[in-house]
Amino acid sequence: MLTALDLVGTFVFALSGAFKGVRNQLDWLGIAVLAVLTGVGGGLIRDVLLGDTPPAVFRDERFFLACLAGAVAVIVAARPIAARWNRVMVADALGLGLFAALGALKGAQAGLGPLGVVMMGSLTAVGGGVIRDVLVGERPAVLDRGFYATAAVIGSALLVGLDTLGATVPVQIGVAAVATSALRFRAMLTSMHLPRPSPPDASL
Amino acid sequence: MLTALDLVGTFVFALSGAFKGVRNQLDWLGIAVLAVLTGVGGGLIRDVLLGDTPPAVFRDERFFLACLAGAVAVIVAARPIAARWNRVMVADALGLGLFAALGALKGAQAGLGPLGVVMMGSLTAVGGGVIRDVLVGERPAVLDRGFYATAAVIGSALLVGLDTLGATVPVQIGVAAVATSALRFRAMLTSMHLPRPSPPDASL
Amino acid sequence: MLTALDLVGTFVFALSGAFKGVRNQLDWLGIAVLAVLTGVGGGLIRDVLLGDTPPAVFRDERFFLACLAGAVAVIVAARPIAARWNRVMVADALGLGLFAALGALKGAQAGLGPLGVVMMGSLTAVGGGVIRDVLVGERPAVLDRGFYATAAVIGSALLVGLDTLGATVPVQIGVAAVATSALRFRAMLTSMHLPRPSPPDASL
Repeated sequence: MLTALDLVGTFVFALSGAFKGVRNQLDWLGIAVLAVLTGVGGGLIRDVLLGDTPPAVFRDERFFLACLAGAVAVIVAARPIAARWNRVMVADALGLGLFAALGALKGAQAGLGPLGVVMMGSLTAVGGGVIRDVLVGERPAVLDRGFYATAAVIGSALLVGLDTLGATVPVQIGVAAVATSALRFRAMLTSMHLPRPSPPDASL
Repeated sequence: MLTALDLVGTFVFALSGAFKGVRNQLDWLGIAVLAVLTGVGGGLIRDVLLGDTPPAVFRDERFFLACLAGAVAVIVAARPIAARWNRVMVADALGLGLFAALGALKGAQAGLGPLGVVMMGSLTAVGGGVIRDVLVGERPAVLDRGFYATAAVIGSALLVGLDTLGATVPVQIGVAAVATSALRFRAMLTSMHLPRPSPPDASL
Repeated sequence: MLTALDLVGTFVFALSGAFKGVRNQLDWLGIAVLAVLTGVGGGLIRDVLLGDTPPAVFRDERFFLACLAGAVAVIVAARPIAARWNRVMVADALGLGLFAALGALKGAQAGLGPLGVVMMGSLTAVGGGVIRDVLVGERPAVLDRGFYATAAVIGSALLVGLDTLGATVPVQIGVAAVATSALRFRAMLTSMHLPRPSPPDASL
């Protein structure tokens, strides 16, 4: 069940990578590269940091297949998918929540402290998107898209709290994933974001 | 023999990194940094993902020496090397083929599945160039240079097929490396590339 | 004692990351992300390359707290800190020296050769800053800021030499850290830098 959700999240993230490739007029392979690295990037960072190598995505070929399916879908149906982009964004928010919860859980099971767990959940959730954006030369969306990483941080922190309170793993994952996705949904509807300090002076 | 070829590939990749540094008007050390990271970057990514740490390049100092030799060569002889850039590109194609074959082989020996082996071969072949381009703020050449990563993907896939058919390791490496290099040569001569889908609309 | 210095270095590096976030008009979380990744990035790279996972910063929560303290300091006091930026730069030079020395020491203790130790010290010292600059889309300062990485390379090389000569660990760390910081101070005062070769031709 968890793996099925993980594969769905990977597919959705791969879609967003493939679209970024189309927008940047890459060829088929460039699109596939972005799809794969966006889909599995967060999990790669998580597993390398935890020393769980080769990373899980290298031990189950279905993750790569999910990414390639995302690339093919965008190549053959870019227009209809673009016309339903709101649904992709909803799926992306679900993927964000799931990846944050699974990353935080894996960090907690590796014995990390609370801040380490939050960092692991957040890096897992946003890592693929950061790789995607850096590769095409854009500032990572996570740095200023409303409540994107923030949602992952809050969801991961909830998992830490539930773990401390002795909640079962399914409850931890469920609450963390739903809270992250819900916060992201809300931000999409309301442009919610944290305050931005103004730079102290222009010359800094 | 394999190590000798690996060192040659490292040297050639370091040359391309050092040249990128000269073009970006970096000082000697900046040039050396780019040469080293371009030369050993692919191997670093491969070994970190496979959990083979410290990476091989940290266990044999000749890899760093090959990179520094590339940096020095470019610093003292940028003009004559630039005048023979076609030969450097040929050597680069050979390095690409060798790195793809060695990366794929290491992935296969670590027990990865077919897609994992192809990904490992491709990341090894193009990883150093991606680091080089991201550091100087350019979009990685691999995303749109004709048949660059594509050649590495096809070569790595050939190695998987030969491995499945029971071919010996030298045959696997030889065919994968030659096929990758040959495809890249052909692309250099003919601007061969995969199709590029057009973006679905300007506002995407 | 070493850990205390390490935490101070982490805090100072986090300050520089947080400031970069303010300059780029990120929100609070974006600032915190840059602070954390700049503060702990070098140590993450070092420990992942050495296979010491989870990295040290994930095993001692005070490192994350030091980063968050840097982010909060910049958010609540950006103006007074900017007015004393010279002092931050001095602290940054001290952090650079300390990180280079600690990274080189860890590499030497892992049995790396001389060039490997120098590379490990340098990557530890500059890794966080490279991540910071790449994420906001700037060319990494290390590639052309005067004598920044150069100082770390020289300091790390000194540690190798002292290790070979049989010096004690405190002497190795002290000399490497002080030499690195002193070289960086001097470069800040005099715009000292290594020569830059001119590109062979405009079309290269």
